Amino acid sequence: MRERDKKLYIPVILGTARVGRQSEKVARFVFAELAKRPDVETELVDVKEYIAGRTVPPWEEHSLLEVWRKKAERADAFLIVSPEYNHSFPGELKMFIDSGYKEYFKKPMAIAGVSDGRIGGARMIEHLRQVIVTVGAVPILSSLYFFKVDELFDEKTGSIKDEGYYKRASECFDDLIWYAEALRAKREEKQ
Amino acid sequence: MRERDKKLYIPVILGTARVGRQSEKVARFVFAELAKRPDVETELVDVKEYIAGRTVPPWEEHSLLEVWRKKAERADAFLIVSPEYNHSFPGELKMFIDSGYKEYFKKPMAIAGVSDGRIGGARMIEHLRQVIVTVGAVPILSSLYFFKVDELFDEKTGSIKDEGYYKRASECFDDLIWYAEALRAKREEKQ
Amino acid sequence: MRERDKKLYIPVILGTARVGRQSEKVARFVFAELAKRPDVETELVDVKEYIAGRTVPPWEEHSLLEVWRKKAERADAFLIVSPEYNHSFPGELKMFIDSGYKEYFKKPMAIAGVSDGRIGGARMIEHLRQVIVTVGAVPILSSLYFFKVDELFDEKTGSIKDEGYYKRASECFDDLIWYAEALRAKREEKQ
Amino acid sequence: MRERDKKLYIPVILGTARVGRQSEKVARFVFAELAKRPDVETELVDVKEYIAGRTVPPWEEHSLLEVWRKKAERADAFLIVSPEYNHSFPGELKMFIDSGYKEYFKKPMAIAGVSDGRIGGARMIEHLRQVIVTVGAVPILSSLYFFKVDELFDEKTGSIKDEGYYKRASECFDDLIWYAEALRAKREEKQ
Repeated sequence: MRERDKKLYIPVILGTARVGRQSEKVARFVFAELAKRPDVETELVDVKEYIAGRTVPPWEEHSLLEVWRKKAERADAFLIVSPEYNHSFPGELKMFIDSGYKEYFKKPMAIAGVSDGRIGGARMIEHLRQVIVTVGAVPILSSLYFFKVDELFDEKTGSIKDEGYYKRASECFDDLIWYAEALRAKREEKQ
Repeated sequence: MRERDKKLYIPVILGTARVGRQSEKVARFVFAELAKRPDVETELVDVKEYIAGRTVPPWEEHSLLEVWRKKAERADAFLIVSPEYNHSFPGELKMFIDSGYKEYFKKPMAIAGVSDGRIGGARMIEHLRQVIVTVGAVPILSSLYFFKVDELFDEKTGSIKDEGYYKRASECFDDLIWYAEALRAKREEKQ
Repeated sequence: MRERDKKLYIPVILGTARVGRQSEKVARFVFAELAKRPDVETELVDVKEYIAGRTVPPWEEHSLLEVWRKKAERADAFLIVSPEYNHSFPGELKMFIDSGYKEYFKKPMAIAGVSDGRIGGARMIEHLRQVIVTVGAVPILSSLYFFKVDELFDEKTGSIKDEGYYKRASECFDDLIWYAEALRAKREEKQ
Repeated sequence: MRERDKKLYIPVILGTARVGRQSEKVARFVFAELAKRPDVETELVDVKEYIAGRTVPPWEEHSLLEVWRKKAERADAFLIVSPEYNHSFPGELKMFIDSGYKEYFKKPMAIAGVSDGRIGGARMIEHLRQVIVTVGAVPILSSLYFFKVDELFDEKTGSIKDEGYYKRASECFDDLIWYAEALRAKREEKQ
């Protein structure tokens, strides 16, 4: 089977380990929507499982982070879901990203910012894009902004209240897949 | 003739209009090297010709900026040469970039930072990458850093003294062309 | 008269020269409110008057920018009103700031971001803060965010519709004045 | 005793927990120099002791981080020593800073960037300054850049080889103390 006939493998990364994190709801929504795409294989990767309760910094624990690096190596694209802490990313997300390097090369990354206010997330996205370029990956313009996350999900059903997010998520996925296909085709060509 | 048989058109943008600008030497070096590539058509685009002495902001002068937008639309990639002023880009470069928008979509941009010191340029590159993502283009990791520019060029011959820059420039072009080809192939496919 | 008995001189800088700029309304509102403070002398400084239609970059025209530098030298603090273009500041604002240097040393700067959307302005503020540190000034946390500016002012009377902005502006001024006084007192002491 | 007669308490924060960290040498140098100032009380605060091997994120462990917050509350200024990872700060430093908030209000922070190359550190400083503003503190212009750290210290004596760093460190301390005094005087006045 040629590479290009294979599904795109796009992990969704939940970038906070904080207790009571609202971003988990967003990550589950994004993951469920992305999983509906027939051409995509996805998985929810929770930084908490790799970072929490571990000796820090975690890149010194080969056994666990090696699992992540194997996933990252196989990935064709990444979708990071993260809140904004003090106008930047959570420290645990930075440690998680820093644990890999060449696994990210020439692969696109999209970001979903989560906030309990109305602008939060936007500045985390800016900082994260600079890190994404630095690890050799491609930050794409299409981003998702989940504002006022405290009010966004139905407490009983867990479903998202603002229907507009289905369309916005779908457009973001289209763009991420566009880049994933373009760059995979070129990477194959070189081999 | 299919798109992919055509040469890649990659303008080199000189991003400062300041009198006595040292970056002009760097832009001429980068332009001359890029012009040697058989698969590339290039051109030196000087923001000074579009911005200097004009009513500001220049996007209100359609006649002149329209010329730039036509070039940008035809381009497959961009290489920006710029000094760092106060840890960011020159204002005239920002006005120049802001004069276009959809012309840049899904095209890679590389940056060469120029400094008379030893770290200058690095922070301009970080700011510029965020703007590049925002206009829908792709900032690539490969960058060029021209330090101590005052001492870098032979005054008589105009040639660069540090031979290492030939190799570094060539590697940067390889990467820029890799992205230009990958993204052009995908853009064509959509049409 | 001792320095500390003098009013604080705090110019309000309008940072865009674009035709039809909505930020002018915001700048006039901020200026009018600041002018009500008995301990403050203020003035509306429009970058358009210093930059527009001039040979660029403007720092080469000593006569005009010299006027600005004299004002900046006398200033105890600054309040910059600016829209966000492509997640950063307008080029003309950058050129204007770059025209001075030691005039800004150890003086606080506050920023009001203007946007026709709901997050715009926030990223411009982040970029501008880095430039503010670099010119030796002090970026303060208190910022003003004017969202959906198109709908914010009464077309007939020109007054702001959302009354909350009076309080927010006042709190921002309090903080700016706190820093202006703290740093002026210390600067005097050294002389 | 009036507040202003008391020594300034300025902790030096070592911002990386990585095994084999070179920044520790820099932190010890900076700490030793700062300790020579008769008007300063200092202490070396190692994020590793607060973060490493702990449940992450650490702000959920009140007992340990409470110790840090008490120190931070008492501090008049901060000096952060940190390497640059992927053009930003280490995740553990971000988690450490995020564990406090109002303790930092209106206090100056200086940064020493550490790199084994020749520009590393400079971009970490830019990111960190934005976080510093966001927690309500004051990022100062005076920074220290320790380049090529692998070759910088004498292996036997542990002393720094480049004598210029004594003068640069002293100038940075002068500036940090200037701000610490200015802001403390004003904070007292309000009480």
